[in-house]
Amino acid sequence: MPTQILLVECDDRPGLVHRITGVLFERGCNVLVNSEFVDREAARFFMRTEYAGEASPRAVEASLRAVLPPEALLRFSEPRPRRIAVLCTREWHCLGDLLLRHAFGDLGAEIAVVLGNHPDLASLVERFEVPFLHVPDGGLSREAHEEAVGKALEPHRPEFLVLAKYMRVLTPGFLRIYPDRIVNIHHSFLPAFTGAHPYRQAFSRGVKIIGATAHLVTEILDEGPILAQDTIPVDHTWDAAAMARAGRDVERTVLARGLRLVFEDRVFLCGRRTVLFD
Amino acid sequence: MPTQILLVECDDRPGLVHRITGVLFERGCNVLVNSEFVDREAARFFMRTEYAGEASPRAVEASLRAVLPPEALLRFSEPRPRRIAVLCTREWHCLGDLLLRHAFGDLGAEIAVVLGNHPDLASLVERFEVPFLHVPDGGLSREAHEEAVGKALEPHRPEFLVLAKYMRVLTPGFLRIYPDRIVNIHHSFLPAFTGAHPYRQAFSRGVKIIGATAHLVTEILDEGPILAQDTIPVDHTWDAAAMARAGRDVERTVLARGLRLVFEDRVFLCGRRTVLFD
Amino acid sequence: MPTQILLVECDDRPGLVHRITGVLFERGCNVLVNSEFVDREAARFFMRTEYAGEASPRAVEASLRAVLPPEALLRFSEPRPRRIAVLCTREWHCLGDLLLRHAFGDLGAEIAVVLGNHPDLASLVERFEVPFLHVPDGGLSREAHEEAVGKALEPHRPEFLVLAKYMRVLTPGFLRIYPDRIVNIHHSFLPAFTGAHPYRQAFSRGVKIIGATAHLVTEILDEGPILAQDTIPVDHTWDAAAMARAGRDVERTVLARGLRLVFEDRVFLCGRRTVLFD
Amino acid sequence: MPTQILLVECDDRPGLVHRITGVLFERGCNVLVNSEFVDREAARFFMRTEYAGEASPRAVEASLRAVLPPEALLRFSEPRPRRIAVLCTREWHCLGDLLLRHAFGDLGAEIAVVLGNHPDLASLVERFEVPFLHVPDGGLSREAHEEAVGKALEPHRPEFLVLAKYMRVLTPGFLRIYPDRIVNIHHSFLPAFTGAHPYRQAFSRGVKIIGATAHLVTEILDEGPILAQDTIPVDHTWDAAAMARAGRDVERTVLARGLRLVFEDRVFLCGRRTVLFD
Repeated sequence: MPTQILLVECDDRPGLVHRITGVLFERGCNVLVNSEFVDREAARFFMRTEYAGEASPRAVEASLRAVLPPEALLRFSEPRPRRIAVLCTREWHCLGDLLLRHAFGDLGAEIAVVLGNHPDLASLVERFEVPFLHVPDGGLSREAHEEAVGKALEPHRPEFLVLAKYMRVLTPGFLRIYPDRIVNIHHSFLPAFTGAHPYRQAFSRGVKIIGATAHLVTEILDEGPILAQDTIPVDHTWDAAAMARAGRDVERTVLARGLRLVFEDRVFLCGRRTVLFD
Repeated sequence: MPTQILLVECDDRPGLVHRITGVLFERGCNVLVNSEFVDREAARFFMRTEYAGEASPRAVEASLRAVLPPEALLRFSEPRPRRIAVLCTREWHCLGDLLLRHAFGDLGAEIAVVLGNHPDLASLVERFEVPFLHVPDGGLSREAHEEAVGKALEPHRPEFLVLAKYMRVLTPGFLRIYPDRIVNIHHSFLPAFTGAHPYRQAFSRGVKIIGATAHLVTEILDEGPILAQDTIPVDHTWDAAAMARAGRDVERTVLARGLRLVFEDRVFLCGRRTVLFD
Repeated sequence: MPTQILLVECDDRPGLVHRITGVLFERGCNVLVNSEFVDREAARFFMRTEYAGEASPRAVEASLRAVLPPEALLRFSEPRPRRIAVLCTREWHCLGDLLLRHAFGDLGAEIAVVLGNHPDLASLVERFEVPFLHVPDGGLSREAHEEAVGKALEPHRPEFLVLAKYMRVLTPGFLRIYPDRIVNIHHSFLPAFTGAHPYRQAFSRGVKIIGATAHLVTEILDEGPILAQDTIPVDHTWDAAAMARAGRDVERTVLARGLRLVFEDRVFLCGRRTVLFD
Repeated sequence: MPTQILLVECDDRPGLVHRITGVLFERGCNVLVNSEFVDREAARFFMRTEYAGEASPRAVEASLRAVLPPEALLRFSEPRPRRIAVLCTREWHCLGDLLLRHAFGDLGAEIAVVLGNHPDLASLVERFEVPFLHVPDGGLSREAHEEAVGKALEPHRPEFLVLAKYMRVLTPGFLRIYPDRIVNIHHSFLPAFTGAHPYRQAFSRGVKIIGATAHLVTEILDEGPILAQDTIPVDHTWDAAAMARAGRDVERTVLARGLRLVFEDRVFLCGRRTVLFD
């Protein structure tokens, strides 16, 4: 029997779990994994269910609509590899990690294309038989470059964009093409050290721990909802370069963890916060 | 409206969540937090629900029995401080931590009594106006000492025993008095370094990480189901004494975390494993 | 033979270790532990040596002066408990932890006195037979209150002040009385969430990790040199109160770690950064 | 001026640092980084110095021999990429990580050759233009297979062997060819879960933390001196396969950390323990 993922989000009220599981039961769907959460502050209900069943999502949706409030958000998806594009500049470690996982079926996604504003990583990408697009930004306005990027990506129809150390800020206009579907890795433990050169900032501040953050990209830089974070200890013998080197291992692991949550439809947004059914 | 905690455990089958939430809904109970888990390997279903409602647990139980398989295990409890006894020997850090949390209402339990096989910690306990019982083991067989311990504890009617660095092994006969209700803190990352002197063993082995484990006590020493674990990095400059000193901070934090899970009825056993609804 | 701690700091140049160890050797001092570090960016040399020997620090210092550049900073100290005052407001966990360690000789310091701007923690302090001073701030200007605090502490001659959740900002005038000798615990992973209510801020931002920072207090709030930091993972089910509760365990462990470095003379300042010979 | 790494190891006695730094000073060598450690239990002195100077290692060694006890062990090396062979079976993650780092000059080593007892990873290796040798073990005794491996590796003259999930036990005879120069990654937090299927063991035992260990290979399996370890938290929702997947990220990071220590000559052995000048 095929497996479906069902996501439900609505204002909280009594009996929601009972009603939703009731519909699944009546439709002959067997719940495999079920998670729910009520955000008390927002009085908002979130539920993610994996179920096996022959009933079509359309039929299940119709039954759910009949028992849920009209404002309820419903989303159905199948557990299948997502189709993604990866954007990069010059740093190899996150991109390399994604290509490796992709090559061995461990990414939960198919990399349709890699796009760089610099050509440096073309040969790495080509080793893995993935197309590489070089869209240079030299002499272009931000908008003009983004338009070129958008056009280059379009024929590859990516569901998600992954910014794997893509060192360019995206405009709101571009973000609107992929709403809540762009994931970035920031090389600090946000909200510490937003902006450029976080390792340099961390060194200057003399912190004893550094980290990395995977987040969804929104209009305000480094302010997007957080998907995953991790930290490692450092000490006074580490200069900014040593921090950057060790940080690379944290970045790629955190990015992969954040992406898995997104690709497996485990993420809800609740204001600036994420509800992650991990 | 009063709050209840409901724990359900039975063999897995379709529709369990729907039926259980249905009973709560019909009985006018509002689910506050709900967690469920199916252990695939054991094909076993576990559910923990906190609900608010006027219905008596007895009435809810009767309705649940009507819709659940006969072998289902049901447990109701109220969120209230548990009544506990703490057993200790000479080390102060876990006991001191429990007394502090107790004094400021942060333990989730009332320490009815502290019992030591050595008198060393009496003055610490008395500072916190908790009774201290000295039950010396000198010249006694294990069984005779345990009988004395059992008798001394009895009038205090503890629901749980906490072994806060109690350096004695308990016999199966004693364990049967408090089945699955004795929590121990072991000063290593189990199953590494079972038995005596784990920090000494860790030093000799040259490990780069040490840890601590809170677990339920069962007949086989250091083999009980694990509630909580944590680790910290060490290096070659740490001798066994330095590991023990740093380890003390890990031990008491891990013990407190494990106890909170037990006192809030967040623990199910699934063979040797624990299902923790944290 | 008595043990001494020697700290040397000067601009870097070749042969410093050779000269310093030469003086110790000639003076019949046996080096027990030796650590040195050159900060490349500042071209600054730092060395900490524990040695056993009969030679007086004065004699060793004279010999060192003869071989070191005139600007060299030399500090001698004996490994002995420091005399400290602890300042608190209403939160018990860091203070309680310090009192416990103090009571069992595990703090590396003697708590001469505890001072609170609120009386709430008096009974806790008195349980441990440590004097408690209540210096209320109601109706007083910051300066007037600090003068009262200063006068109250003076007869206790503390070498260091520990701010154990003392919820008042200190003025530069007060800080000058104890230069680089006031340690604070901040309940966030600095520089994230400076200022008030860090757990509230962390919750709103939806971070997946929280932390704590022990630092020396300088004129700019939350900007002092960092001594120790640690983090723990959190998720969407944690509200600000749950973060605060778990954070308490991190805070007191981090504070104790930072204090040990200070009390054992393991800390050098290099601009805003610390060099820690741990 | 060329940089040298000097490693000194001998029984501890007063004045060693002074004598060694004195020789370097007289020979016109400028110490860049210096670390020393005395293992109290073994009364053994270890020192690692990076220095810049024109003096030949042979000349420096002669001068050091004149001031050090005859049993002193001296080792000189230059900071240069080591020449290594990687052995693998079927798992791609550690090998892929090493190839990526190698391709971008981040490994501290040149991968001369990769050898597998299975052919599965040949195409991955060839993507990176590194030779792959398939030395099948089918139908061969352990000794016969090892002889074939030894012969296949010989023309590549590796200084170190890296076992990147090489699922074969090596005989003492083979280990003697590369004494203390074979690094293995074990997929558990040693000494927990030695032997086969550590993730399966970890799942069955219900641990709340899993880890990985990089170690030097010695005659007793999983008992070699430890170079690096790390851990991550898990819970009851993780089956053995989920642990294995998350564990892969820990394994490759820990392996890379352990290798860096070895390739940069930062490792001393002190019995079963390692002294790591990190």
